[in-house]
Amino acid sequence: MAFKRYIPVESISELTINRLSVYLRCLQQLEHEGGTTISSQELADRFHLNSAQIRKDLAYFGEFGIRGVGYNVTQLREHLVNILGLHEERRVLMVGAGNLGTALSHYSGFNTGGFRIVAILDSDPHKLGKRVPGGLTVESVVNLTQIVKERKVHLGVITVPASSAQRVYDDLVDAGVQAVLNFAPAQLKGHPEVKLKNVDLKINLELLSFFLTHAARMASV
Amino acid sequence: MAFKRYIPVESISELTINRLSVYLRCLQQLEHEGGTTISSQELADRFHLNSAQIRKDLAYFGEFGIRGVGYNVTQLREHLVNILGLHEERRVLMVGAGNLGTALSHYSGFNTGGFRIVAILDSDPHKLGKRVPGGLTVESVVNLTQIVKERKVHLGVITVPASSAQRVYDDLVDAGVQAVLNFAPAQLKGHPEVKLKNVDLKINLELLSFFLTHAARMASV
Repeated sequence: MAFKRYIPVESISELTINRLSVYLRCLQQLEHEGGTTISSQELADRFHLNSAQIRKDLAYFGEFGIRGVGYNVTQLREHLVNILGLHEERRVLMVGAGNLGTALSHYSGFNTGGFRIVAILDSDPHKLGKRVPGGLTVESVVNLTQIVKERKVHLGVITVPASSAQRVYDDLVDAGVQAVLNFAPAQLKGHPEVKLKNVDLKINLELLSFFLTHAARMASV
Repeated sequence: MAFKRYIPVESISELTINRLSVYLRCLQQLEHEGGTTISSQELADRFHLNSAQIRKDLAYFGEFGIRGVGYNVTQLREHLVNILGLHEERRVLMVGAGNLGTALSHYSGFNTGGFRIVAILDSDPHKLGKRVPGGLTVESVVNLTQIVKERKVHLGVITVPASSAQRVYDDLVDAGVQAVLNFAPAQLKGHPEVKLKNVDLKINLELLSFFLTHAARMASV
């Protein structure tokens, strides 16, 4: 693998890594359609991306294309899978079996392509033992530590209310998970060795609201 | 309002606007706790933020703090509400009444604080007429244009499968929505005058996978 050389991972921005995921989606689609080679310009044109950005992002990880020919679609797809660590199984624990947790537990993508949800937990006695659509049964959050250890959980996903999120995060860290995705609208105090990614869905609506407000104001100037 | 002067909205990054949403959450919490004034340093310490970043982000919109005193919590909260355009009602249309669409239609935050979901649509005849937990009834996507116009929809949220996402986006644009939040894992061809924000939830898991892979490799070097 071309990226086995030392990668100063801290120097690569989250935006770059997010774009690698986007490129991976595009290459999967091209491969599905039977495409074999593609240049960065063709890739950009086809999927509304930026060709210079594609070349720059990939250059962090080695030289993948052949000048004048482009990228081998299958090889580049495999490289991206390896760079993103998707060739290994990642066991995911969902904490919070409310509406969002339940929806995500069988959301396409959260339980495919390297990720496997191994349990969904809640503290509400009325939810325990209930089967969620993905096929899992809601288990008690009391058993969090035991479940993390026994099922070798890598990633925790927090979908509890904001008021419980810090406690759940701390419990996940103590139990030994290596990374946490937090959907609760709470600013958590992170642990330096456990990667924390906050996803506040409302922030996206507020971003659009900002653009509506200012675009309208500018248009009416 | 201090920001009524011309704002070159294109020069402000999405990351800055996302941070304004984070500051707003923090100020709402402080106000709820009875706080009246706070310095950027105190705000940063309390919520694990960066004080220089706070000052820089706010400086785009005017001068809000008093040197040596800090910010008035209520006033700054109100300023942020206005900057983000949350003082106006934003009517939201959900397209796709699958698991994610249904969960989001009654996700706290998607139906509060300025946002109101006015309809949820689907093309599946088995879903039409079904009541979703938020109280809405699933309506036919055939009526999209009429619903956008009659209910004066500002924002569209796409939660259909990837294969239908471009068609739904185009229909929303044609019907006159001003901004679209897309949850489908598809690279959409955007319209220059309609703000499009893609939210691919799996990208967040892949980001964590990247950090697990490379952090482990670095630690073992």
